[in-house]
Amino acid sequence: MVAMQDFEDAIDRVLLGAARTILMNDHDRQIVAYHESGHALVAWLTPASDPVHKVTIIPRGQALGVTEQVPGEDQYNYSRDYLLARISVMLGGRTAEEIALNEITTGAENDLVQATRLARRMITRWGMGSLGLMALASDEQQPFLGYELTQGRDYSEATAAKIDQDIQQLLENRQEFVRQLLSSNRDRLDQVVQVLLKEETIDEKVLEKILGPRQLDGESSPLTNEVISPEIAAAD
Amino acid sequence: MVAMQDFEDAIDRVLLGAARTILMNDHDRQIVAYHESGHALVAWLTPASDPVHKVTIIPRGQALGVTEQVPGEDQYNYSRDYLLARISVMLGGRTAEEIALNEITTGAENDLVQATRLARRMITRWGMGSLGLMALASDEQQPFLGYELTQGRDYSEATAAKIDQDIQQLLENRQEFVRQLLSSNRDRLDQVVQVLLKEETIDEKVLEKILGPRQLDGESSPLTNEVISPEIAAAD
Amino acid sequence: MVAMQDFEDAIDRVLLGAARTILMNDHDRQIVAYHESGHALVAWLTPASDPVHKVTIIPRGQALGVTEQVPGEDQYNYSRDYLLARISVMLGGRTAEEIALNEITTGAENDLVQATRLARRMITRWGMGSLGLMALASDEQQPFLGYELTQGRDYSEATAAKIDQDIQQLLENRQEFVRQLLSSNRDRLDQVVQVLLKEETIDEKVLEKILGPRQLDGESSPLTNEVISPEIAAAD
Amino acid sequence: MVAMQDFEDAIDRVLLGAARTILMNDHDRQIVAYHESGHALVAWLTPASDPVHKVTIIPRGQALGVTEQVPGEDQYNYSRDYLLARISVMLGGRTAEEIALNEITTGAENDLVQATRLARRMITRWGMGSLGLMALASDEQQPFLGYELTQGRDYSEATAAKIDQDIQQLLENRQEFVRQLLSSNRDRLDQVVQVLLKEETIDEKVLEKILGPRQLDGESSPLTNEVISPEIAAAD
Amino acid sequence: MVAMQDFEDAIDRVLLGAARTILMNDHDRQIVAYHESGHALVAWLTPASDPVHKVTIIPRGQALGVTEQVPGEDQYNYSRDYLLARISVMLGGRTAEEIALNEITTGAENDLVQATRLARRMITRWGMGSLGLMALASDEQQPFLGYELTQGRDYSEATAAKIDQDIQQLLENRQEFVRQLLSSNRDRLDQVVQVLLKEETIDEKVLEKILGPRQLDGESSPLTNEVISPEIAAAD
Amino acid sequence: MVAMQDFEDAIDRVLLGAARTILMNDHDRQIVAYHESGHALVAWLTPASDPVHKVTIIPRGQALGVTEQVPGEDQYNYSRDYLLARISVMLGGRTAEEIALNEITTGAENDLVQATRLARRMITRWGMGSLGLMALASDEQQPFLGYELTQGRDYSEATAAKIDQDIQQLLENRQEFVRQLLSSNRDRLDQVVQVLLKEETIDEKVLEKILGPRQLDGESSPLTNEVISPEIAAAD
Repeated sequence: MVAMQDFEDAIDRVLLGAARTILMNDHDRQIVAYHESGHALVAWLTPASDPVHKVTIIPRGQALGVTEQVPGEDQYNYSRDYLLARISVMLGGRTAEEIALNEITTGAENDLVQATRLARRMITRWGMGSLGLMALASDEQQPFLGYELTQGRDYSEATAAKIDQDIQQLLENRQEFVRQLLSSNRDRLDQVVQVLLKEETIDEKVLEKILGPRQLDGESSPLTNEVISPEIAAAD
Repeated sequence: MVAMQDFEDAIDRVLLGAARTILMNDHDRQIVAYHESGHALVAWLTPASDPVHKVTIIPRGQALGVTEQVPGEDQYNYSRDYLLARISVMLGGRTAEEIALNEITTGAENDLVQATRLARRMITRWGMGSLGLMALASDEQQPFLGYELTQGRDYSEATAAKIDQDIQQLLENRQEFVRQLLSSNRDRLDQVVQVLLKEETIDEKVLEKILGPRQLDGESSPLTNEVISPEIAAAD
Repeated sequence: MVAMQDFEDAIDRVLLGAARTILMNDHDRQIVAYHESGHALVAWLTPASDPVHKVTIIPRGQALGVTEQVPGEDQYNYSRDYLLARISVMLGGRTAEEIALNEITTGAENDLVQATRLARRMITRWGMGSLGLMALASDEQQPFLGYELTQGRDYSEATAAKIDQDIQQLLENRQEFVRQLLSSNRDRLDQVVQVLLKEETIDEKVLEKILGPRQLDGESSPLTNEVISPEIAAAD
Repeated sequence: MVAMQDFEDAIDRVLLGAARTILMNDHDRQIVAYHESGHALVAWLTPASDPVHKVTIIPRGQALGVTEQVPGEDQYNYSRDYLLARISVMLGGRTAEEIALNEITTGAENDLVQATRLARRMITRWGMGSLGLMALASDEQQPFLGYELTQGRDYSEATAAKIDQDIQQLLENRQEFVRQLLSSNRDRLDQVVQVLLKEETIDEKVLEKILGPRQLDGESSPLTNEVISPEIAAAD
Repeated sequence: MVAMQDFEDAIDRVLLGAARTILMNDHDRQIVAYHESGHALVAWLTPASDPVHKVTIIPRGQALGVTEQVPGEDQYNYSRDYLLARISVMLGGRTAEEIALNEITTGAENDLVQATRLARRMITRWGMGSLGLMALASDEQQPFLGYELTQGRDYSEATAAKIDQDIQQLLENRQEFVRQLLSSNRDRLDQVVQVLLKEETIDEKVLEKILGPRQLDGESSPLTNEVISPEIAAAD
Repeated sequence: MVAMQDFEDAIDRVLLGAARTILMNDHDRQIVAYHESGHALVAWLTPASDPVHKVTIIPRGQALGVTEQVPGEDQYNYSRDYLLARISVMLGGRTAEEIALNEITTGAENDLVQATRLARRMITRWGMGSLGLMALASDEQQPFLGYELTQGRDYSEATAAKIDQDIQQLLENRQEFVRQLLSSNRDRLDQVVQVLLKEETIDEKVLEKILGPRQLDGESSPLTNEVISPEIAAAD
């Protein structure tokens, strides 16, 4: 007999690699648990973000833990609110470590790379930063070497500096938002961590038992964001 | 028997790919409908622009919707007025979303890329910006790797900054113009959207029924544009 | 029997491609006629420039019209006066459109590219700009990839900015000169256009009938040009 | 019979190359002894650092001496404290030479390269510097030539300057910390050097005899570090 | 019978290409004659320069005229005085055109390229400019592509600007010196030109008849040169 | 019978190429003699430098003369004092020409290139300049094209400017030191030159007869050097 759980396991094995047995000390397990719980809690509390499907601290492939989000339905246009929520969730892992353990580690490297890349696209391709509607040539979609070279960087140093400032400001605002969100929900963060350390994997239903139903219409605590226009605050 | 409609369908299939069946929720359909109606309405109301042939929200190939414009006759020289009108039409999609739905999304990426590219050519190749008559080497037409490399960028950082400022200013002015145009024609925008959501495709005749005849000699509401010289206002 | 005209036609077919039949509306024909007449009239009125051999608005190859100049005899050294006159003639096409039709179009792209290239060489290779006698490595004559790469740009950003300023200033001065020249000869410009629209091709003799004999020793109206030294004024 | 020492020797031969016999004068031996003792003493006195396994001044492969550290258990996340401690240990070699022999030599080249690389990663990839959470594209993991080229440097000159300042400041703070640590433990440094010059190799047990037990919970003398946040001081 | 002249002709044919018959008008011949006489006269009057062997306005290969200098004996070290004299001779051609004909032409392009290249080497490789003794990596002697690329430009923008300023200043000083030299020897310049226009080729003996014996110990009129140190003045 | 001299000759032939017979005039011989004597005398008078083995003005391979230094024993760490002494010796050749003959020539090109390279490494790799302990990626040891390209220059323009300033300052200080050293030993310089012009080759013993025994513990006249720390003065 094949149960639902077998499908789940099969999908995980394909997507994330086989579960690895690695000897992690208690301190490292605690770091990973806070990191994943941070991702999950920010996603749970931010209405615009994709729903959380599963959280685990069983290492798979390169990852020491995973927070899986599954979009409710196919999406064709991503709104600014959705993109900011996505960055918030990415930063939730590191911020949880910082708040709960007063430590920052190298474990968030991939989150920071992804968040920076997304922020850069918002500013340079989707007209959501201080460049206004100017869209810079994308380096990612040009297949030929020669063409890429000349395309390389056809904007000015001043524009490059604006982009960097925008990215930094956007990430700083998101981090401040996430810090306040997690700090004011510290007890819930600890509860998720306790269950996760015991069970190693939590699915959406268990999360709902711990945290109560997700409020999709509620407002997240807004933060002023000078780079990004006022609409942001409403949806967070 | 082969009807005119069969030819239309055949042309669409070649140009835009086969019609795709994708499951889009009501919110996404609404976004696409406002986006395409924005393109169409700006084109309808701007005398210098090409006439609108068809608007559709049936997804084809990569596109979730299409606004087709067909030039009345072959054109050999493009005037500055025509080019500015073209940029206005490009920006109409995103601006309609913003005005009607108070949202900006990633869906306008391609419009922004095209509008930026056109603005850049106006400034760097056609003597229509603050570089005056200086025409910079085009990166796009040099076939050989070595040649492209040395051609790469033979202008100064100061000139690169001027180009970026010009592009930003030009797009900002166009956006402001489009925002005012769509805001003062908000009811007509909503009417087009309603019909489009129901019929999925509208051709020029239906558009004319909704919007009345296109006034090709009327003046569009002009905007001061410090970068570009005064002639612009007249034709918009 | 083979007439002189047959030779002319054969040469044109080789140099410019076969005459093309394209359907151009009256407005486009008018633009092309003013453009070519602008080139021709500036050449006629500028003593240092090569004599005009023929003007035509019959499209050939890529070109919608052509103004042919033929140097009186082989030239081995080009004087600064000759080079400035050549740039003036290049700018005559676009300036005529602007003055007569109050429009600027994309049709002058190639003229601007050539004028910019010539101005750049005057400044960077022939010691005729604010770099003084410093001659920068030419990108155009180095055959090997590796060599070109290292040669690429061995001058400073400050020098690159000086070059751009010089080019812009030189072209602006030439354009101002051409604007004054064409404005004070507006009736002659219109006369050439009228004949050209009717005959489609005018040769030197017809031009002389319309404009009177070319004064090779007369002075063209000089303009102060701070970048370029005082000798310029004398020859224009 | 195979003793533990045989395994040690075998591992050393694989990791470090065969022991080399080179004729070093007394002055050079003294430099190497202070260099390695500097590494070892800083590691011993810095709670966050990996424990010292062995110190030797027997040349092997390229190295004139080696200080081996072995992490107590597998580590999956590296904390900022650990990374700073690691840099401190790297700088201990050169600083010991400077303090004891009033000389700086080329022998620390590799230490400086490694310390700079680690500091750079802290700032540009792990969100531990004045760029905040912005993570720059890593040059090290992109396999394809074309891709690397366009990725090359997509940040501004201003950001490059910030990175350089951060690296310099971080290394300067670490050096000042190490200087104070070694100066206030000068007698212990000399003792390790004396034994090392006589024995040529010291293992952890001998080190403990000379220096007393390693205090893993004690505080190292903190230093203000404006670039890096206040948590640093606590752990050093 | 083979005369000395036959050897001369044979050498010329190998070095410079066969003599070309080109139809040059009187004005162009005059330009070439002043150009070559300028080179020759500056060389004659500058003690540090190589002696003049022959001057000709018979076109050969690419050249419209040639001034041949032959060093008296093999040289192994080039003094700063010699290098400056060489630049002076290079600039003599264009300056003679300017003084006598009040014209500057494209004919000096190669002279300017060579003079700039020599000035650059003095400043960047031979410690004779405001960079002091810092010698920058030479682009010219690295055979491998990869190596050249990384070597490309390892100095700062500030240094690049210094080099450009030095080159411009050095060339300007030399030009001013040459201008004064030729102006105060205007009659001798005209005499050489007259003979050259009649004879087409002049050798050293004829030059001596026109100009009198070359004074190798006399002083050339010195000019203050702030970039280059005071020794220069003595030798010129 | 094979004498010691035969070995010497054989080594020279391998290292430096066969002795060349070139016709050098007296002036050039004098330049070379002062150049080599300058190298030798600075080495003799600077305690930290390697001992002089031989000086010759017999041309070999590319070199017009050679000053051979042989380190007393294998060295594994190079101290800052040694490196500065080495640069001083390199600059001794050109400075001797300048002091004695009031001339600077192209003959020191290779010395300047080597001195600049060494100064650059001190500053960018060995922590001996105003970059502090920051060690920049070395261009010289990366074997693969792609890797080198991305590594190319990962530091800021501000850092590049600091490096250039440091190199210039370091070389200027060394030159000033060498100038004072040679000026106050002018008579000894002339004596070495006299013997060298007569004998063509001098070995260490002859040098000692001319100059007296080398004082290895004596102090060379120190110079303040703001870039490099105070220890320098002591050892020179």
